[in-house]
Amino acid sequence: MTLAAEQTQSATDELKALLGDRVSTNTTVRDTHGKDESWHHPHRPDAVVFPNTTEEVSEVVKICAKHKLPVVAYGTGTCLEGNVIPTSGGIVVDLMNMDQVLRVNAEDLDCTVQARVTRKQLNEYIRDQGLFFPIDPGADASLGGMAATRASGTNAVRYGTMRENVLALTVVLADGRIIKTSKRARKSAAGYDLTRIFVGSEGTLGIITAVTLRLYGIPEAMASAVCSFDTLAGAVDTVIQTIQLGIPVARIELLDDLEMDAVNKFSKLDYPVKDTLFLEFHGTEAGVKEQAETVQEIAAENGGGDFKWATKAEDRNKLWAARHDVTYASKALRPGCDIWATDVCVPISRLAECILETKKDLADSFLMAPLVGHVGDGNFHLGFLIDRDDPKELEEAERINDRLVMRALAMEGTCTGEHGIGLGKMKFMTAEHGEGVSVMRAIKKALDPDNIMNPGKIFTV
Amino acid sequence: MTLAAEQTQSATDELKALLGDRVSTNTTVRDTHGKDESWHHPHRPDAVVFPNTTEEVSEVVKICAKHKLPVVAYGTGTCLEGNVIPTSGGIVVDLMNMDQVLRVNAEDLDCTVQARVTRKQLNEYIRDQGLFFPIDPGADASLGGMAATRASGTNAVRYGTMRENVLALTVVLADGRIIKTSKRARKSAAGYDLTRIFVGSEGTLGIITAVTLRLYGIPEAMASAVCSFDTLAGAVDTVIQTIQLGIPVARIELLDDLEMDAVNKFSKLDYPVKDTLFLEFHGTEAGVKEQAETVQEIAAENGGGDFKWATKAEDRNKLWAARHDVTYASKALRPGCDIWATDVCVPISRLAECILETKKDLADSFLMAPLVGHVGDGNFHLGFLIDRDDPKELEEAERINDRLVMRALAMEGTCTGEHGIGLGKMKFMTAEHGEGVSVMRAIKKALDPDNIMNPGKIFTV
Repeated sequence: MTLAAEQTQSATDELKALLGDRVSTNTTVRDTHGKDESWHHPHRPDAVVFPNTTEEVSEVVKICAKHKLPVVAYGTGTCLEGNVIPTSGGIVVDLMNMDQVLRVNAEDLDCTVQARVTRKQLNEYIRDQGLFFPIDPGADASLGGMAATRASGTNAVRYGTMRENVLALTVVLADGRIIKTSKRARKSAAGYDLTRIFVGSEGTLGIITAVTLRLYGIPEAMASAVCSFDTLAGAVDTVIQTIQLGIPVARIELLDDLEMDAVNKFSKLDYPVKDTLFLEFHGTEAGVKEQAETVQEIAAENGGGDFKWATKAEDRNKLWAARHDVTYASKALRPGCDIWATDVCVPISRLAECILETKKDLADSFLMAPLVGHVGDGNFHLGFLIDRDDPKELEEAERINDRLVMRALAMEGTCTGEHGIGLGKMKFMTAEHGEGVSVMRAIKKALDPDNIMNPGKIFTV
Repeated sequence: MTLAAEQTQSATDELKALLGDRVSTNTTVRDTHGKDESWHHPHRPDAVVFPNTTEEVSEVVKICAKHKLPVVAYGTGTCLEGNVIPTSGGIVVDLMNMDQVLRVNAEDLDCTVQARVTRKQLNEYIRDQGLFFPIDPGADASLGGMAATRASGTNAVRYGTMRENVLALTVVLADGRIIKTSKRARKSAAGYDLTRIFVGSEGTLGIITAVTLRLYGIPEAMASAVCSFDTLAGAVDTVIQTIQLGIPVARIELLDDLEMDAVNKFSKLDYPVKDTLFLEFHGTEAGVKEQAETVQEIAAENGGGDFKWATKAEDRNKLWAARHDVTYASKALRPGCDIWATDVCVPISRLAECILETKKDLADSFLMAPLVGHVGDGNFHLGFLIDRDDPKELEEAERINDRLVMRALAMEGTCTGEHGIGLGKMKFMTAEHGEGVSVMRAIKKALDPDNIMNPGKIFTV
């Protein structure tokens, strides 16, 4: 037995003494925890543990620290850049048993949940109190995972991302210590912003075990609409003018013609196969009406067709389900394919240019890649439909993705608006942050000197 | 000459070689830079430098790093907790020459300014483009200083604080390296949140030399109002119900009866001497009307009097000038006094209780301390009117302040909502953050191993 194997064996024995049958070395279980929803190749961890409490997570991390074994936290495994793939093996900490809403403070519009509560689960739980939590990445992800990747989604244009909506975190550090990053006040000037050091750190600085979140009252009125455009530029200009006028639109999403074709086929709809905006307005009855009228005028001036309205909850849900199913819809365009999902975010003044140049790259390529975007934030996604075992396809997707990212950076944008760095965007970190990467590295080294927390992600140490 | 004195002499010589007469060892200049607007006792730095560029700041820091001399950045000196007092001597970096707006991107609703541009200067500059920047601490502070202390003010209830409104920073690190913390995209998931590591770090991790900020379109309609209440509880309940209904009130400020008396006398006004809310609504004409009607109903149900309206810009400015002058108004209640300004922030459900218990402490004390608050955030201030050379008064202010802070912490609040830790709140850091302080300390040590950046602030190293 090698030294590494001996360490792993000792650690596994200690973990079993701690958690009993909540430690698994079963190959199927390990394989399930060796991948995410990305195109990145899986890697099998040495063991998977299922702690029930923050204290148990702390004990698990202490054992891993003692043996210098990698520890990777796992929520729903729905990330898109290989963020949770245990590329160095080690122990995966599946938080599935930590799925309780710990408390809801309706008066303060906040709540605290264990890390594995999903966004839909939380919304079910709080709906009767007239509350909702707006952040909605495509998947029904865990709120701990969403904090770890600084997730956002369709509502971010109005409600912000996880950056703005996490009030506090409970975190297990690399040596097993437990901290709470903040109290429950809406704002604070008391020292370094520990909460936002961990939001977006992708498990490389500690394991998030509980999350305190801002909540919102369910608006008095909500209305959704779909509007097709003659040109992509017209759709994007509608978005830009809406944002610049300060209209508090709740959602403003772009689907290109290819994506609309996919959505129609998958969700059995008959929208025009054109560049299309999906919109939603929240407010009072009068406020929603006023917002909607203004945006309709803007759209009409930019070659937009009539708004197809959905105001009943049932119809709105159907419309947004179609929007949220784009991944599956895209996949159905090429049965059996893998999806290489990528995203960038640029200042909104550069959005049309960035999208149009990218579409030109795609027109010249043999790969298909539908486009969908949270365009109110300047954020859009491509989903390359590839066979990940075909090197030529991977190479072509990489070529277009490289061009996309470098284009976004040249426009003062970022290599990822919401998917995180994981494995897939590591090579762009220096191009984006320059010397800033060395500051991140110094923080990583200070908080995880043995590099056991999700090693090999975001940047090399 | 001691070794320390020799180091200081060598450093000063090198600084003079770099900056010529933009280095001052004049006693008056040093004294001016040895204090802020707080009650904390001043301390004279060894020299004051006036760099013109980020590169010059970098060279200054490199010289200080070589000689292990403290470096303290200085903007307008308007902080309230001793945040810029150079308690260990060393070099004060006065950024007064770095006062240019570098660019405004009206389409993207953002701008980049040098650190010493003040909030009022920026607002003058962008007004013609129909834009404004909402964050307004009482003083006309520099935007670099506001970022460094995570400032907020009266508009935070709607627009957020510096935490939410800084998009990127240029920072000179402790070894003189220059980084830009982020690009200009509205959101990003690309690695650690460097921007928010420096926002609120009070100059202890680096010197902020430029700030990229979010801007907002000037609303189509704005209306301000003043409303007096029979009871403090009625005023606070009005705030709570307004927030819980999700009304996007732009400002909702509480002044207690004592503060109203001060404001009346100082600004020659004749408001009732009662607990009073100052409100402002932003939006479309119809939206403002709708918001105002709803809040008037809520106020009436809670014992509020009629709303006294100000809708013309001139009248609104007069109203808010009175609000912003509370420090001077308070001071006039006891001519020649010093003000010990303190602030806490609690979850809004605990706000009435926190304020009422604090008012009870004050009723039993021989000290006067008017109360004013950004109550929509759960944040309020006391201004103890003291003679800072009288130990008995200091002791009494400290006693009440200690009780106030521990009360706020027990209510899951924070020891400071917006003034920062500086010197004055250091002793509460462990009570608030527990083991979290060690994480802050580890970050400080990683980024400033020789502890030269504003040493002795926030926590002891």
